[in-house]
Amino acid sequence: MFVAMTENKKPILGKKVIFTFAGDHGVTEEGVSAYPKEVTQQMVFNFLRGGAGINVLARHAGADVVVVDIGVDHDFRELDGLINLKVINGTKNFTKGPAMTRDNAVRCIETGIELANGYAKKGYKILGTGDMGIGNTTPSSAIAAVLTGRPVSEVTGKGTGITDESLQRKIKVIEKGINLNKPNSEDAIDVLSKVGGAEIGGIAGLILGAASNRIPVVIDGFISTAGALIAYCIEPKVKDYMFAAHNSVEIGHKAMLDKIGLRPILDLDLRLGEGTGAALAMMIIEAGLKIYKEMATFGEAGVAEKS
Amino acid sequence: MFVAMTENKKPILGKKVIFTFAGDHGVTEEGVSAYPKEVTQQMVFNFLRGGAGINVLARHAGADVVVVDIGVDHDFRELDGLINLKVINGTKNFTKGPAMTRDNAVRCIETGIELANGYAKKGYKILGTGDMGIGNTTPSSAIAAVLTGRPVSEVTGKGTGITDESLQRKIKVIEKGINLNKPNSEDAIDVLSKVGGAEIGGIAGLILGAASNRIPVVIDGFISTAGALIAYCIEPKVKDYMFAAHNSVEIGHKAMLDKIGLRPILDLDLRLGEGTGAALAMMIIEAGLKIYKEMATFGEAGVAEKS
Repeated sequence: MFVAMTENKKPILGKKVIFTFAGDHGVTEEGVSAYPKEVTQQMVFNFLRGGAGINVLARHAGADVVVVDIGVDHDFRELDGLINLKVINGTKNFTKGPAMTRDNAVRCIETGIELANGYAKKGYKILGTGDMGIGNTTPSSAIAAVLTGRPVSEVTGKGTGITDESLQRKIKVIEKGINLNKPNSEDAIDVLSKVGGAEIGGIAGLILGAASNRIPVVIDGFISTAGALIAYCIEPKVKDYMFAAHNSVEIGHKAMLDKIGLRPILDLDLRLGEGTGAALAMMIIEAGLKIYKEMATFGEAGVAEKS
Repeated sequence: MFVAMTENKKPILGKKVIFTFAGDHGVTEEGVSAYPKEVTQQMVFNFLRGGAGINVLARHAGADVVVVDIGVDHDFRELDGLINLKVINGTKNFTKGPAMTRDNAVRCIETGIELANGYAKKGYKILGTGDMGIGNTTPSSAIAAVLTGRPVSEVTGKGTGITDESLQRKIKVIEKGINLNKPNSEDAIDVLSKVGGAEIGGIAGLILGAASNRIPVVIDGFISTAGALIAYCIEPKVKDYMFAAHNSVEIGHKAMLDKIGLRPILDLDLRLGEGTGAALAMMIIEAGLKIYKEMATFGEAGVAEKS
């Protein structure tokens, strides 16, 4: 698969990078998340200090981590190691109007495409997606519902661990947002702008950019798959460049993977996001490549063929 | 889990090793395998040259590979890198009598235990199992049928790729072996000796030895799980030290994992054996350990708690 993607019969995985896109969500006002919104910015600092899950697993996998502020509701000023490509200061509460303008949704996607182009030029051979954004399972479930056509209740889970009562509220909030904004399921950019998020747009763009550079891209978990589904609805051919890292515990994840037609590499009940699943899956992909390149054929090894 | 196994709150994975036990099977006379029996010895040479799948993946995972001749029907004499612990020159055809004597089955298990003890002394922190033996899905399915109580047809698959017709023959061969030898499902050593194999006994012993040294052991695929089930039936407590690497394409695999109560880490449709799945799973286990040790807690990272 990797060989077909890169059109190189002796592929080298080489430099690997995971992009963790961070953004905030106005819909957190509706009580859909277990953590306060400030955790998004606090986690950005944690990523830059190297103490988060994605830092640990990317080190293990030998991948770089690029932290991108595409929509955090905080002014980080100049911060060493943080890529400032901010499009918005968080989305608006989509129960009261669109999450962002169509122009900003397009800018988020373009930001991701430009990052992919830049890292392709730098010689990176595989990209991974990741996300950080308190509340971002809510827009991801909204995107899943609109683009797969399933009821909101079938694609909405507990995120980082809300109660059963909060889950019922979250479902109602998403239904309200969809009914109010009426995103057009035939227009993925419309869906992204009305009920999506900046980091989801960045991820969608990164995937589009990776595919256009014929570089494989590893899709992390639920939020990244919402971005992947946006990218797929814009250009279905991107599917041929995607690896689905894992099947998360969020119930809407499988519905989106099925819609795109991806089978996840891992099934570990992960729920961390950040790109952690992508890091783990990169190790498995690299293992597959090494088998392809380094393992002797039966002929080379002097082993008898089938009798 | 790893912490509980090792009773060490700051565990270090440290030195890793995968044991690839090789053995031959007299039942190959019955046409149950796609490859001639000589492939077992040819693959042993391939392992020692470093060209096989297990060599590639163990290098990737940073694990050593120890190739053990426990029952190959070939005299390798002194061969650099091969551990000669031969108990038998292959099993006998179990459609005509027991695969091996009870004494030899016990010796195979003891061989595995002694290997685990030796590598525990050498400071290895995690062991993995692997196998090489043309025809060895046949005794593994026989063990699965006897010890899970399921019909042979429900636990027998196509191994390295036999035809539908050969699969029907394989099922009849296993049924014949079980009917003739009447292995006692309450006595795992009886099952191992009558319808098992030397490498399966070695794997069972390795697992028993690992557990007695409180060292985690990663169970590879279908054949290794047959060994694990033998070990589990001898001493159920060993379960607490086992990681199931993956769910293979062999249909009997899941039945045995369920019987032991293990959930596989990976589900990649692997069918290679050798310990390849164990090598991949070791990378994931190591990732989990690193998360446990290196990831900052929310408190350490200055991140707000749940609201």
